Amino acid sequence: MDFGTEFKPQIIEPQKIQDRSFEIIAEELGEHAFTPAQFKVVQRVIHASADFELGRSLVFHELAVDSGIAAIRSGRTIVADVQMVQAGISKPRIEKYGGDVKVYISDADVMEEAKRLGITRAIAAIRKAAKDAPDGIYVVGNAPTALLEVIRLVKAGELQPSLVIGVPVGFVSAAESKAELEKLDIPFIANRGRKGGSPAAVAAVNALAILADLPYLENPSGPAAASHPARPQNA
Amino acid sequence: MDFGTEFKPQIIEPQKIQDRSFEIIAEELGEHAFTPAQFKVVQRVIHASADFELGRSLVFHELAVDSGIAAIRSGRTIVADVQMVQAGISKPRIEKYGGDVKVYISDADVMEEAKRLGITRAIAAIRKAAKDAPDGIYVVGNAPTALLEVIRLVKAGELQPSLVIGVPVGFVSAAESKAELEKLDIPFIANRGRKGGSPAAVAAVNALAILADLPYLENPSGPAAASHPARPQNA
Repeated sequence: MDFGTEFKPQIIEPQKIQDRSFEIIAEELGEHAFTPAQFKVVQRVIHASADFELGRSLVFHELAVDSGIAAIRSGRTIVADVQMVQAGISKPRIEKYGGDVKVYISDADVMEEAKRLGITRAIAAIRKAAKDAPDGIYVVGNAPTALLEVIRLVKAGELQPSLVIGVPVGFVSAAESKAELEKLDIPFIANRGRKGGSPAAVAAVNALAILADLPYLENPSGPAAASHPARPQNA
Repeated sequence: MDFGTEFKPQIIEPQKIQDRSFEIIAEELGEHAFTPAQFKVVQRVIHASADFELGRSLVFHELAVDSGIAAIRSGRTIVADVQMVQAGISKPRIEKYGGDVKVYISDADVMEEAKRLGITRAIAAIRKAAKDAPDGIYVVGNAPTALLEVIRLVKAGELQPSLVIGVPVGFVSAAESKAELEKLDIPFIANRGRKGGSPAAVAAVNALAILADLPYLENPSGPAAASHPARPQNA
Protein backbone atom coordinates (compact mmCIF):
# COMPACT_ATOMS: atom_id res chain seq x y z
CA MET A 1 0.00 0.00 0.00
CA ASP A 2 1.22 3.47 -0.83
CA PHE A 3 -0.49 6.17 1.19
CA GLY A 4 1.66 8.92 -0.34
CA THR A 5 3.41 9.26 3.01
CA GLU A 6 7.13 9.17 3.68
CA PHE A 7 6.40 6.28 6.02
CA LYS A 8 5.61 3.12 4.04
CA PRO A 9 3.87 0.56 6.23
CA GLN A 10 5.32 -2.93 5.72
CA ILE A 11 2.39 -4.70 7.35
CA ILE A 12 -1.21 -3.63 6.92
CA GLU A 13 -3.18 -6.86 7.46
CA PRO A 14 -4.83 -6.66 10.90
CA GLN A 15 -3.92 -10.26 11.80
CA LYS A 16 -0.26 -9.77 10.89
CA ILE A 17 -0.17 -6.44 12.75
CA GLN A 18 -1.51 -8.23 15.80
CA ASP A 19 0.95 -11.12 15.49
CA ARG A 20 3.89 -8.74 15.19
CA SER A 21 2.54 -6.64 18.09
CA PHE A 22 2.29 -9.71 20.31
CA GLU A 23 5.91 -10.60 19.51
CA ILE A 24 7.05 -7.10 20.46
CA ILE A 25 5.05 -7.24 23.70
CA ALA A 26 6.51 -10.60 24.72
CA GLU A 27 10.04 -9.35 23.97
CA GLU A 28 9.68 -6.04 25.78
CA LEU A 29 7.72 -7.27 28.78
CA GLY A 30 10.53 -9.63 29.77
CA GLU A 31 10.22 -11.62 33.00
CA HIS A 32 6.88 -11.89 34.75
CA ALA A 33 5.03 -14.21 37.10
CA PHE A 34 1.84 -14.71 35.07
CA THR A 35 0.76 -18.22 34.05
CA PRO A 36 0.75 -18.84 30.28
CA ALA A 37 -3.03 -18.41 30.13
CA GLN A 38 -2.98 -15.25 32.27
CA PHE A 39 -0.25 -13.92 30.01
CA LYS A 40 -2.63 -14.15 27.04
CA VAL A 41 -4.88 -11.69 28.87
CA VAL A 42 -1.99 -9.43 29.87
CA GLN A 43 -0.65 -9.41 26.32
CA ARG A 44 -3.99 -8.36 24.87
CA VAL A 45 -4.42 -5.62 27.48
CA ILE A 46 -0.99 -4.23 26.58
CA HIS A 47 -1.85 -4.55 22.89
CA ALA A 48 -4.98 -2.43 23.45
CA SER A 49 -3.19 0.27 25.46
CA ALA A 50 0.49 0.15 24.49
CA ASP A 51 0.96 0.46 28.24
CA PHE A 52 3.25 -2.07 29.91
CA GLU A 53 2.62 -0.53 33.31
CA LEU A 54 -1.10 -1.23 32.92
CA GLY A 55 -0.36 -4.80 31.81
CA ARG A 56 1.95 -5.44 34.75
CA SER A 57 -0.65 -4.05 37.16
CA LEU A 58 -3.10 -6.88 36.43
CA VAL A 59 -3.97 -9.24 39.26
CA PHE A 60 -5.70 -12.60 38.80
CA HIS A 61 -7.63 -14.74 41.24
CA GLU A 62 -6.23 -18.25 40.71
CA LEU A 63 -9.53 -19.50 39.22
CA ALA A 64 -10.23 -16.42 37.11
CA VAL A 65 -9.06 -17.69 33.74
CA ASP A 66 -10.60 -21.15 34.12
CA SER A 67 -13.90 -19.85 35.38
CA GLY A 68 -14.03 -17.21 32.65
CA ILE A 69 -13.39 -19.79 29.95
CA ALA A 70 -15.98 -22.17 31.41
CA ALA A 71 -18.54 -19.36 31.64
CA ILE A 72 -18.03 -18.33 28.02
CA ARG A 73 -18.28 -21.96 26.90
CA SER A 74 -21.51 -22.28 28.91
CA GLY A 75 -23.04 -19.26 27.21
CA ARG A 76 -23.27 -17.18 30.38
CA THR A 77 -24.35 -13.57 29.94
CA ILE A 78 -21.63 -10.94 29.95
CA VAL A 79 -22.70 -7.76 31.73
CA ALA A 80 -20.80 -4.63 30.69
CA ASP A 81 -20.91 -1.46 32.76
CA VAL A 82 -20.94 0.90 29.77
CA GLN A 83 -21.66 0.87 26.02
CA MET A 84 -17.99 1.26 25.08
CA VAL A 85 -17.21 -2.07 26.74
CA GLN A 86 -20.16 -3.75 25.03
CA ALA A 87 -19.10 -2.26 21.67
CA GLY A 88 -15.59 -3.68 21.88
CA ILE A 89 -16.36 -7.25 22.85
CA SER A 90 -16.24 -9.70 19.94
CA LYS A 91 -19.89 -10.75 19.78
CA PRO A 92 -19.53 -13.70 17.36
CA ARG A 93 -17.04 -15.32 19.76
CA ILE A 94 -19.57 -15.06 22.60
CA GLU A 95 -22.74 -15.79 20.67
CA LYS A 96 -21.52 -19.02 19.14
CA TYR A 97 -21.64 -20.53 22.64
CA GLY A 98 -25.13 -19.11 23.22
CA GLY A 99 -23.92 -16.15 25.27
CA ASP A 100 -24.74 -12.48 24.95
CA VAL A 101 -23.35 -9.12 26.03
CA LYS A 102 -25.70 -6.82 27.92
CA VAL A 103 -25.49 -3.27 29.18
CA TYR A 104 -28.22 -1.81 31.37
CA ILE A 105 -26.99 1.71 32.16
CA SER A 106 -29.17 3.46 29.58
CA ASP A 107 -32.36 1.45 30.22
CA ALA A 108 -35.30 3.72 31.03
CA ASP A 109 -36.16 1.79 34.21
CA VAL A 110 -32.55 1.96 35.39
CA MET A 111 -32.46 5.72 34.91
CA GLU A 112 -35.76 6.12 36.77
CA GLU A 113 -34.66 3.88 39.62
CA ALA A 114 -31.37 5.76 39.98
CA LYS A 115 -33.23 9.06 40.19
CA ARG A 116 -35.81 7.72 42.64
CA LEU A 117 -33.21 6.25 45.01
CA GLY A 118 -30.54 8.92 44.57
CA ILE A 119 -27.95 6.37 43.42
CA THR A 120 -25.76 6.34 40.33
CA ARG A 121 -27.08 4.84 37.12
CA ALA A 122 -24.12 2.46 37.31
CA ILE A 123 -25.37 1.08 40.64
CA ALA A 124 -28.96 0.78 39.45
CA ALA A 125 -27.73 -1.02 36.32
CA ILE A 126 -25.83 -3.61 38.37
CA ARG A 127 -28.92 -4.24 40.53
CA LYS A 128 -30.98 -4.95 37.43
CA ALA A 129 -28.23 -7.13 35.97
CA ALA A 130 -27.98 -9.15 39.18
CA LYS A 131 -31.62 -10.19 38.74
CA ASP A 132 -31.23 -11.00 35.03
CA ALA A 133 -27.85 -12.72 35.17
CA PRO A 134 -26.84 -13.67 38.73
CA ASP A 135 -24.13 -16.04 37.45
CA GLY A 136 -22.86 -13.88 34.60
CA ILE A 137 -19.47 -12.40 33.84
CA TYR A 138 -19.40 -8.83 35.20
CA VAL A 139 -17.13 -6.45 33.33
CA VAL A 140 -16.45 -3.00 34.77
CA GLY A 141 -14.16 -0.73 32.76
CA ASN A 142 -15.44 2.61 33.90
CA ALA A 143 -17.60 3.08 36.96
CA PRO A 144 -16.11 2.41 40.42
CA THR A 145 -19.62 2.50 41.89
CA ALA A 146 -20.63 -0.37 39.57
CA LEU A 147 -17.75 -2.45 40.89
CA LEU A 148 -18.52 -1.55 44.51
CA GLU A 149 -22.13 -2.60 43.95
CA VAL A 150 -21.00 -5.94 42.49
CA ILE A 151 -18.90 -6.46 45.63
CA ARG A 152 -21.82 -5.54 47.90
CA LEU A 153 -24.18 -7.95 46.14
CA VAL A 154 -21.63 -10.78 46.25
CA LYS A 155 -21.19 -10.26 49.99
CA ALA A 156 -24.98 -10.19 50.42
CA GLY A 157 -25.28 -13.49 48.56
CA GLU A 158 -27.36 -11.91 45.79
CA LEU A 159 -24.79 -12.38 43.05
CA GLN A 160 -22.59 -15.39 42.21
CA PRO A 161 -20.66 -14.15 39.21
CA SER A 162 -18.65 -16.62 37.12
CA LEU A 163 -16.00 -13.92 36.86
CA VAL A 164 -15.65 -10.25 37.74
CA ILE A 165 -13.37 -8.22 35.49
CA GLY A 166 -12.90 -5.04 37.49
CA VAL A 167 -10.60 -2.52 35.84
CA PRO A 168 -12.28 0.88 36.26
CA VAL A 169 -10.04 3.84 35.46
CA GLY A 170 -9.87 7.09 37.35
CA PHE A 171 -8.74 9.36 40.12
CA VAL A 172 -11.61 8.99 42.58
CA SER A 173 -12.42 5.54 44.06
CA ALA A 174 -11.15 3.50 41.11
CA ALA A 175 -8.03 2.11 42.78
CA GLU A 176 -9.88 1.66 46.06
CA SER A 177 -12.75 -0.26 44.46
CA LYS A 178 -10.28 -2.63 42.82
CA ALA A 179 -8.45 -3.16 46.11
CA GLU A 180 -11.79 -4.23 47.63
CA LEU A 181 -12.37 -6.67 44.75
CA GLU A 182 -8.99 -8.26 45.46
CA LYS A 183 -10.18 -9.11 48.97
CA LEU A 184 -12.94 -11.39 47.68
CA ASP A 185 -12.34 -15.10 47.15
CA ILE A 186 -14.23 -15.29 43.89
CA PRO A 187 -12.87 -15.47 40.35
CA PHE A 188 -11.73 -11.93 39.46
CA ILE A 189 -9.35 -10.09 37.19
CA ALA A 190 -8.42 -6.66 38.55
CA ASN A 191 -5.55 -4.25 38.30
CA ARG A 192 -3.81 -2.06 40.82
CA GLY A 193 -3.79 1.71 40.65
CA ARG A 194 -5.66 4.39 38.77
CA LYS A 195 -5.27 3.02 35.27
CA GLY A 196 -7.66 0.65 33.53
CA GLY A 197 -10.60 1.46 31.26
CA SER A 198 -12.83 0.08 28.57
CA PRO A 199 -10.07 -1.21 26.26
CA ALA A 200 -8.47 -3.17 29.12
CA ALA A 201 -11.85 -4.64 30.06
CA VAL A 202 -12.62 -5.52 26.45
CA ALA A 203 -9.17 -7.01 25.89
CA ALA A 204 -9.58 -9.29 28.90
CA VAL A 205 -12.93 -10.61 27.68
CA ASN A 206 -11.72 -11.12 24.13
CA ALA A 207 -8.58 -12.90 25.32
CA LEU A 208 -10.70 -15.33 27.36
CA ALA A 209 -13.04 -15.87 24.42
CA ILE A 210 -10.08 -16.83 22.24
CA LEU A 211 -8.79 -19.19 24.94
CA ALA A 212 -12.28 -20.71 25.12
CA ASP A 213 -11.86 -21.80 21.51
CA LEU A 214 -8.79 -23.89 22.22
CA PRO A 215 -10.14 -27.43 22.49
CA TYR A 216 -7.14 -28.74 24.41
CA LEU A 217 -7.22 -26.00 27.03
CA GLU A 218 -9.18 -27.70 29.75
CA ASN A 219 -7.02 -26.73 32.67
CA PRO A 220 -5.15 -23.65 31.56
CA SER A 221 -4.01 -22.32 34.94
CA GLY A 222 -2.40 -25.44 36.30
CA PRO A 223 -3.11 -27.70 39.27
CA ALA A 224 -4.87 -25.01 41.33
CA ALA A 225 -7.81 -25.22 39.00
CA ALA A 226 -8.15 -28.99 39.00
CA SER A 227 -11.33 -28.88 41.08
CA HIS A 228 -12.89 -26.44 38.65
CA PRO A 229 -13.07 -28.16 35.26
CA ALA A 230 -13.53 -25.94 32.25
CA ARG A 231 -14.86 -28.63 29.93
CA PRO A 232 -17.05 -27.19 27.15
CA GLN A 233 -20.72 -27.45 28.11
CA ASN A 234 -22.51 -26.44 24.98
CA ALA A 235 -19.69 -26.05 22.51
CA MET B 1 -23.54 4.86 50.26
CA ASP B 2 -22.38 1.83 52.19
CA PHE B 3 -21.18 -0.96 49.93
CA GLY B 4 -20.18 -3.14 52.88
CA THR B 5 -16.55 -2.52 51.96
CA GLU B 6 -13.80 -1.27 54.24
CA PHE B 7 -13.35 1.56 51.75
CA LYS B 8 -16.22 4.06 52.09
CA PRO B 9 -16.43 6.27 49.00
CA GLN B 10 -16.92 9.93 49.95
CA ILE B 11 -18.06 10.99 46.49
CA ILE B 12 -20.28 8.87 44.28
CA GLU B 13 -22.06 11.41 42.07
CA PRO B 14 -20.51 11.20 38.56
CA GLN B 15 -20.35 15.00 38.16
CA LYS B 16 -18.60 15.47 41.51
CA ILE B 17 -16.21 12.59 40.78
CA GLN B 18 -15.34 14.29 37.51
CA ASP B 19 -14.88 17.71 39.14
CA ARG B 20 -12.59 16.28 41.80
CA SER B 21 -10.69 14.28 39.15
CA PHE B 22 -10.13 17.41 37.09
CA GLU B 23 -8.73 19.20 40.15
CA ILE B 24 -6.31 16.33 40.79
CA ILE B 25 -5.24 16.31 37.14
CA ALA B 26 -4.56 20.05 37.09
CA GLU B 27 -2.55 19.79 40.33
CA GLU B 28 -0.50 16.78 39.28
CA LEU B 29 0.13 17.77 35.67
CA GLY B 30 1.90 20.93 36.75
CA GLU B 31 3.48 23.16 34.10
CA HIS B 32 2.62 22.69 30.46
CA ALA B 33 2.51 24.67 27.22
CA PHE B 34 -1.09 23.94 26.18
CA THR B 35 -3.52 26.83 25.63
CA PRO B 36 -6.45 26.93 28.08
CA ALA B 37 -8.78 25.40 25.47
CA GLN B 38 -6.28 22.69 24.48
CA PHE B 39 -5.85 21.94 28.17
CA LYS B 40 -9.56 21.05 28.39
CA VAL B 41 -8.90 18.32 25.85
CA VAL B 42 -5.73 17.16 27.57
CA GLN B 43 -7.48 17.05 30.93
CA ARG B 44 -10.29 14.89 29.61
CA VAL B 45 -7.86 12.51 27.90
CA ILE B 46 -5.99 12.08 31.20
CA HIS B 47 -9.31 11.63 33.00
CA ALA B 48 -10.21 8.79 30.62
CA SER B 49 -6.87 7.02 30.93
CA ALA B 50 -5.32 8.08 34.26
CA ASP B 51 -2.22 8.41 32.12
CA PHE B 52 -0.31 11.69 32.33
CA GLU B 53 2.23 10.49 29.79
CA LEU B 54 -0.57 10.03 27.25
CA GLY B 55 -1.95 13.49 28.06
CA ARG B 56 1.43 15.14 27.70
CA SER B 57 1.98 13.38 24.37
CA LEU B 58 -0.89 15.26 22.71
CA VAL B 59 -0.05 17.62 19.86
CA PHE B 60 -2.42 20.25 18.46
CA HIS B 61 -2.46 22.04 15.14
CA GLU B 62 -2.99 25.69 16.07
CA LEU B 63 -6.48 25.73 14.50
CA ALA B 64 -7.58 22.33 15.80
CA VAL B 65 -9.69 23.42 18.74
CA ASP B 66 -11.37 26.31 16.92
CA SER B 67 -12.10 24.29 13.83
CA GLY B 68 -13.41 21.38 15.91
CA ILE B 69 -15.75 23.66 17.86
CA ALA B 70 -16.97 25.35 14.69
CA ALA B 71 -17.57 21.99 13.01
CA ILE B 72 -19.59 20.67 15.95
CA ARG B 73 -21.63 23.89 16.05
CA SER B 74 -22.26 23.53 12.31
CA GLY B 75 -23.55 20.00 12.71
CA ARG B 76 -20.78 18.39 10.69
CA THR B 77 -20.72 14.59 10.67
CA ILE B 78 -18.26 12.88 12.99
CA VAL B 79 -16.69 9.79 11.42
CA ALA B 80 -15.38 7.23 13.92
CA ASP B 81 -13.01 4.47 12.85
CA VAL B 82 -14.52 1.83 15.16
CA GLN B 83 -17.71 1.15 17.14
CA MET B 84 -16.01 1.73 20.50
CA VAL B 85 -15.29 5.33 19.53
CA GLN B 86 -18.85 5.83 18.31
CA ALA B 87 -20.22 4.29 21.52
CA GLY B 88 -18.31 6.67 23.75
CA ILE B 89 -19.12 9.97 22.08
CA SER B 90 -21.87 11.93 23.81
CA LYS B 91 -24.55 11.84 21.10
CA PRO B 92 -26.95 14.43 22.61
CA ARG B 93 -24.13 17.01 22.61
CA ILE B 94 -23.55 16.41 18.89
CA GLU B 95 -27.13 15.91 17.77
CA LYS B 96 -28.44 19.13 19.26
CA TYR B 97 -26.39 20.99 16.65
CA GLY B 98 -27.71 18.73 13.88
CA GLY B 99 -24.61 16.53 13.77
CA ASP B 100 -24.28 12.77 13.87
CA VAL B 101 -21.65 10.14 14.60
CA LYS B 102 -21.05 7.53 11.91
CA VAL B 103 -18.97 4.39 11.68
CA TYR B 104 -18.64 2.49 8.42
CA ILE B 105 -16.28 -0.38 9.23
CA SER B 106 -19.00 -3.02 9.60
CA ASP B 107 -21.08 -1.97 6.58
CA ALA B 108 -21.65 -4.86 4.17
CA ASP B 109 -20.43 -2.85 1.16
CA VAL B 110 -17.28 -1.81 3.03
CA MET B 111 -16.48 -5.41 3.90
CA GLU B 112 -17.05 -6.49 0.30
CA GLU B 113 -14.94 -3.68 -1.11
CA ALA B 114 -12.09 -4.44 1.31
CA LYS B 115 -12.13 -8.09 0.23
CA ARG B 116 -12.33 -7.23 -3.46
CA LEU B 117 -9.41 -4.78 -3.34
CA GLY B 118 -7.31 -6.60 -0.74
CA ILE B 119 -7.28 -3.59 1.57
CA THR B 120 -8.19 -3.33 5.25
CA ARG B 121 -11.81 -2.71 6.24
CA ALA B 122 -10.52 0.43 7.96
CA ILE B 123 -9.28 1.82 4.64
CA ALA B 124 -12.46 0.89 2.77
CA ALA B 125 -14.50 2.54 5.54
CA ILE B 126 -12.59 5.83 5.22
CA ARG B 127 -13.10 5.81 1.44
CA LYS B 128 -16.84 5.48 1.91
CA ALA B 129 -16.85 8.15 4.63
CA ALA B 130 -14.94 10.56 2.39
CA LYS B 131 -17.81 10.43 -0.11
CA ASP B 132 -20.52 10.82 2.56
CA ALA B 133 -18.84 13.44 4.71
CA PRO B 134 -15.88 15.09 2.95
CA ASP B 135 -15.82 17.97 5.46
CA GLY B 136 -16.49 15.92 8.59
CA ILE B 137 -14.51 15.40 11.77
CA TYR B 138 -12.44 12.22 11.36
CA VAL B 139 -11.71 10.37 14.59
CA VAL B 140 -9.23 7.50 14.58
CA GLY B 141 -8.60 5.74 17.88
CA ASN B 142 -7.61 2.36 16.60
CA ALA B 143 -6.58 1.68 13.05
CA PRO B 144 -3.34 3.20 11.73
CA THR B 145 -4.40 2.30 8.18
CA ALA B 146 -7.54 4.41 8.63
CA LEU B 147 -5.41 7.40 9.59
CA LEU B 148 -2.98 6.80 6.71
CA GLU B 149 -5.93 6.68 4.31
CA VAL B 150 -7.26 9.97 5.69
CA ILE B 151 -3.83 11.49 5.04
CA ARG B 152 -3.70 10.07 1.50
CA LEU B 153 -7.16 11.43 0.64
CA VAL B 154 -6.31 14.88 2.07
CA LYS B 155 -3.17 15.01 -0.06
CA ALA B 156 -5.17 13.89 -3.10
CA GLY B 157 -7.69 16.69 -2.51
CA GLU B 158 -10.53 14.22 -1.96
CA LEU B 159 -11.08 15.05 1.70
CA GLN B 160 -11.19 18.43 3.48
CA PRO B 161 -11.83 17.42 7.07
CA SER B 162 -12.83 20.07 9.61
CA LEU B 163 -10.61 18.25 12.06
CA VAL B 164 -8.68 15.00 12.22
CA ILE B 165 -8.32 13.43 15.65
CA GLY B 166 -5.64 10.82 15.08
CA VAL B 167 -4.69 8.87 18.18
CA PRO B 168 -4.43 5.21 17.11
CA VAL B 169 -2.77 2.95 19.68
CA GLY B 170 -0.36 0.16 18.95
CA PHE B 171 3.02 -1.30 18.22
CA VAL B 172 2.95 -1.45 14.43
CA SER B 173 2.52 1.78 12.38
CA ALA B 174 0.55 3.68 15.03
CA ALA B 175 3.33 6.13 16.01
CA GLU B 176 4.43 6.46 12.39
CA SER B 177 0.92 7.23 11.12
CA LYS B 178 0.56 9.99 13.72
CA ALA B 179 3.95 11.45 12.78
CA GLU B 180 2.67 11.70 9.19
CA LEU B 181 -0.49 13.46 10.37
CA GLU B 182 1.65 16.05 12.16
CA LYS B 183 3.25 16.97 8.84
CA LEU B 184 -0.07 18.17 7.39
CA ASP B 185 -1.15 21.79 7.69
CA ILE B 186 -4.77 20.99 8.49
CA PRO B 187 -6.57 21.08 11.83
CA PHE B 188 -5.48 17.96 13.72
CA ILE B 189 -5.12 16.59 17.21
CA ALA B 190 -2.57 13.80 17.42
CA ASN B 191 -0.28 12.31 20.01
CA ARG B 192 3.29 11.08 19.87
CA GLY B 193 4.27 7.48 20.48
CA ARG B 194 2.50 4.15 20.73
CA LYS B 195 -0.20 5.11 23.18
CA GLY B 196 -3.65 6.42 22.29
CA GLY B 197 -6.87 4.50 21.78
CA SER B 198 -10.62 4.81 21.76
CA PRO B 199 -10.97 6.52 25.17
CA ALA B 200 -8.46 9.22 24.17
CA ALA B 201 -10.29 9.77 20.87
CA VAL B 202 -13.67 9.90 22.62
CA ALA B 203 -12.37 12.23 25.32
CA ALA B 204 -11.09 14.68 22.72
CA VAL B 205 -14.44 14.80 20.90
CA ASN B 206 -16.43 15.16 24.11
CA ALA B 207 -14.13 17.93 25.38
CA LEU B 208 -14.66 19.87 22.14
CA ALA B 209 -18.42 19.32 22.32
CA ILE B 210 -18.46 20.80 25.82
CA LEU B 211 -16.37 23.75 24.65
CA ALA B 212 -18.84 24.22 21.78
CA ASP B 213 -21.55 24.88 24.37
CA LEU B 214 -19.73 27.85 25.87
CA PRO B 215 -21.40 30.85 24.22
CA TYR B 216 -18.55 33.23 24.97
CA LEU B 217 -15.88 30.95 23.54
CA GLU B 218 -15.58 32.38 20.07
CA ASN B 219 -11.85 32.44 19.81
CA PRO B 220 -10.62 29.91 22.32
CA SER B 221 -7.07 29.42 21.07
CA GLY B 222 -5.97 33.05 20.99
CA PRO B 223 -4.80 35.34 18.21
CA ALA B 224 -3.59 32.56 15.90
CA ALA B 225 -7.19 31.63 15.23
CA ALA B 226 -8.45 35.13 14.52
CA SER B 227 -8.93 34.40 10.82
CA HIS B 228 -11.01 31.32 11.61
CA PRO B 229 -14.06 32.46 13.57
CA ALA B 230 -15.92 29.80 15.53
CA ARG B 231 -19.23 31.65 15.75
CA PRO B 232 -22.20 29.29 16.20
CA GLN B 233 -23.81 28.61 12.84
CA ASN B 234 -26.92 26.70 13.73
CA ALA B 235 -26.85 26.74 17.50
